[in-house]
Amino acid sequence: MGDRERARREGLRRVMERDGLDGYLIVDPVNVSYLTGFNGDDSFLWIGDAGTILLSDTRFEEQIKEECPDVGAAIRSSGQSTLGLLRAAITDTAYSSRIPKKAGFEASTATVAFYNSLIGEFPEIEFIARDKDVERLREIKDEGEVAAIRKAIEISIDGYRALKASATGEATEVDLRDELEYLMRKSGGDDVSFPSIVAYDARAALPHAIPSRGGALKDANMVLIDWGAKRDGYVGDLTRSFLTEKGRSSGSAEYRRKFDEVFRIVLEAHDAAIAAIKPGVRCDAIDRIARDAIRAAGYGDYFGHGLGHGIGRVVHDFGGFSPSASAELRRNMILTVEPGIYLPGWGGIRIEDDVLVTETGCEVLSSRLPDDE
Amino acid sequence: MGDRERARREGLRRVMERDGLDGYLIVDPVNVSYLTGFNGDDSFLWIGDAGTILLSDTRFEEQIKEECPDVGAAIRSSGQSTLGLLRAAITDTAYSSRIPKKAGFEASTATVAFYNSLIGEFPEIEFIARDKDVERLREIKDEGEVAAIRKAIEISIDGYRALKASATGEATEVDLRDELEYLMRKSGGDDVSFPSIVAYDARAALPHAIPSRGGALKDANMVLIDWGAKRDGYVGDLTRSFLTEKGRSSGSAEYRRKFDEVFRIVLEAHDAAIAAIKPGVRCDAIDRIARDAIRAAGYGDYFGHGLGHGIGRVVHDFGGFSPSASAELRRNMILTVEPGIYLPGWGGIRIEDDVLVTETGCEVLSSRLPDDE
Repeated sequence: MGDRERARREGLRRVMERDGLDGYLIVDPVNVSYLTGFNGDDSFLWIGDAGTILLSDTRFEEQIKEECPDVGAAIRSSGQSTLGLLRAAITDTAYSSRIPKKAGFEASTATVAFYNSLIGEFPEIEFIARDKDVERLREIKDEGEVAAIRKAIEISIDGYRALKASATGEATEVDLRDELEYLMRKSGGDDVSFPSIVAYDARAALPHAIPSRGGALKDANMVLIDWGAKRDGYVGDLTRSFLTEKGRSSGSAEYRRKFDEVFRIVLEAHDAAIAAIKPGVRCDAIDRIARDAIRAAGYGDYFGHGLGHGIGRVVHDFGGFSPSASAELRRNMILTVEPGIYLPGWGGIRIEDDVLVTETGCEVLSSRLPDDE
Repeated sequence: MGDRERARREGLRRVMERDGLDGYLIVDPVNVSYLTGFNGDDSFLWIGDAGTILLSDTRFEEQIKEECPDVGAAIRSSGQSTLGLLRAAITDTAYSSRIPKKAGFEASTATVAFYNSLIGEFPEIEFIARDKDVERLREIKDEGEVAAIRKAIEISIDGYRALKASATGEATEVDLRDELEYLMRKSGGDDVSFPSIVAYDARAALPHAIPSRGGALKDANMVLIDWGAKRDGYVGDLTRSFLTEKGRSSGSAEYRRKFDEVFRIVLEAHDAAIAAIKPGVRCDAIDRIARDAIRAAGYGDYFGHGLGHGIGRVVHDFGGFSPSASAELRRNMILTVEPGIYLPGWGGIRIEDDVLVTETGCEVLSSRLPDDE
């Protein structure tokens, strides 16, 4: 374990050297975990020119020893402030050979109140607002991370399959959400990646619908489910849209024809985008492939969000695919591909898979669902 | 609904008038919900001298109409920035009669990156870092909030009772956590208040233990569970510690004697603190009552956290009881009382209830558990 985290810290040190930073204060708990292996929260990481030290409190003392024995740790005693702890770390030559002149800090996470305390405590240090230094490292997954995301996706799928096998006609959207999240836990999930979306019929036209306590599955024609499990700190993120038993068997042929048409268009957009994914291609170009396919079919006004996003330790790990994303794909990025068509008052269809960018193309990590069409 | 939120906004307007602010930008989603009734996220609230407007995006358009029809809303179109939306709101005389001179913003939530963009966009406005203006209003619950917290606690208890009735000897800490969280959902919970703690034996000596996948209930002597349900935006927070069947029936009499002794001391500290709670008493005085009781019994070194905290829309809603809390209790505050004794290598006992400060004392909102002793 420790080797991967050390390699990540080395990556950040290269950025520090390039930009003349002789210290870096990490305050985002996700980044603290990424750089150390420590999974608690409320803790900061100081990266000095001589060493790395975790600033935490007594609640996490044992956990730190267990999870990252190779990283120094300073434990706040009762009455001591976090900034007092930071001062001790900065003045300890094991971590900083001298008081740093220019130290980076995470400006997209640090609050203004914290920053004001920080510069009040350390007037001798110039704190430089930095953005996404660690997040940029996180975009490229190492083999351990790829394995962890595969596992999270597998658990997501196991939970979904168990749900499809056990759902009853009386279930509301909230019931299906509760069952799905429970079944993912029973399949090995530590938590959910994000609050699951379960939406029937017209509610599926809201891309971020919150599950409702009204309306039973047996009365719905279609269902959209967007879900994912978290395991060992990494997430999966999938969406499936399908006709219910009622949608398939009763009701109008016109409705079914429409569903099948929209489904086919979304699936074609999804497949065309995936077929084009490989290192070196720009993210906006991938987005355009799916968007053009949907527009050509006459539904251009009904796909209002980006095509996908990076996943990793969090569900929106990095930007991903959108009309304005100029970044190029690189090997070992993992992203969602999730085109959708949302027809107000009727419903919505979204198909979302997670793909790993490989040397020559990509691998779909989430393709073993029984109802891909 | 709308009346309560309007009264809260009036409360904030009084603070603004007192301190000479002619605008206020609310960025904490919990505070946005509190002041408007809107439960989505990624949205800001601008409080101008003439009106209030929610700045959101198309995902939440319908939800805003449903949840807070009396608040103005500006919906970000694709390609428009949130700060562009804010500029439109600030220059609309329906909300601000003129460009504000001094506007408050939430310095404990706003990030440095956001603040830098904000002052770059509005060099003509002096943005004043404010702390806890809305949080201070939130300390005193209105009748709707008291009812919501009662409901959340009831659901928490229902889930816990169902767990105690159904738990099997094979269950690990993770299994009990998963069952409990599922059973709270089945009892009407929207979500959990926080990740539940389930800890067997020596792990219960860690006040924030993360449930483990090893070790079965049938092999444990004692269990500590700290949990709560969230419903309609409000939370419950309880802890119970109890001997298992094994702890009660097999093993040493010495162990049971120790458990009973520690339990009795914690319960007496809990009861003594609750008996002293009433408006006008300082929070540190309540903390001291429990701490002194534990110290007098010889366990002063084993109670390392504050006695309790305010609850409300979040589980740590406001400071509450600690050795350094000089604030006075006021009517309609709701707080936890949770003394504990943690003995490394042996286990830990914490008893946590939620109390409502009344005119003359307090009401324990969480006292219908079957195993209070």
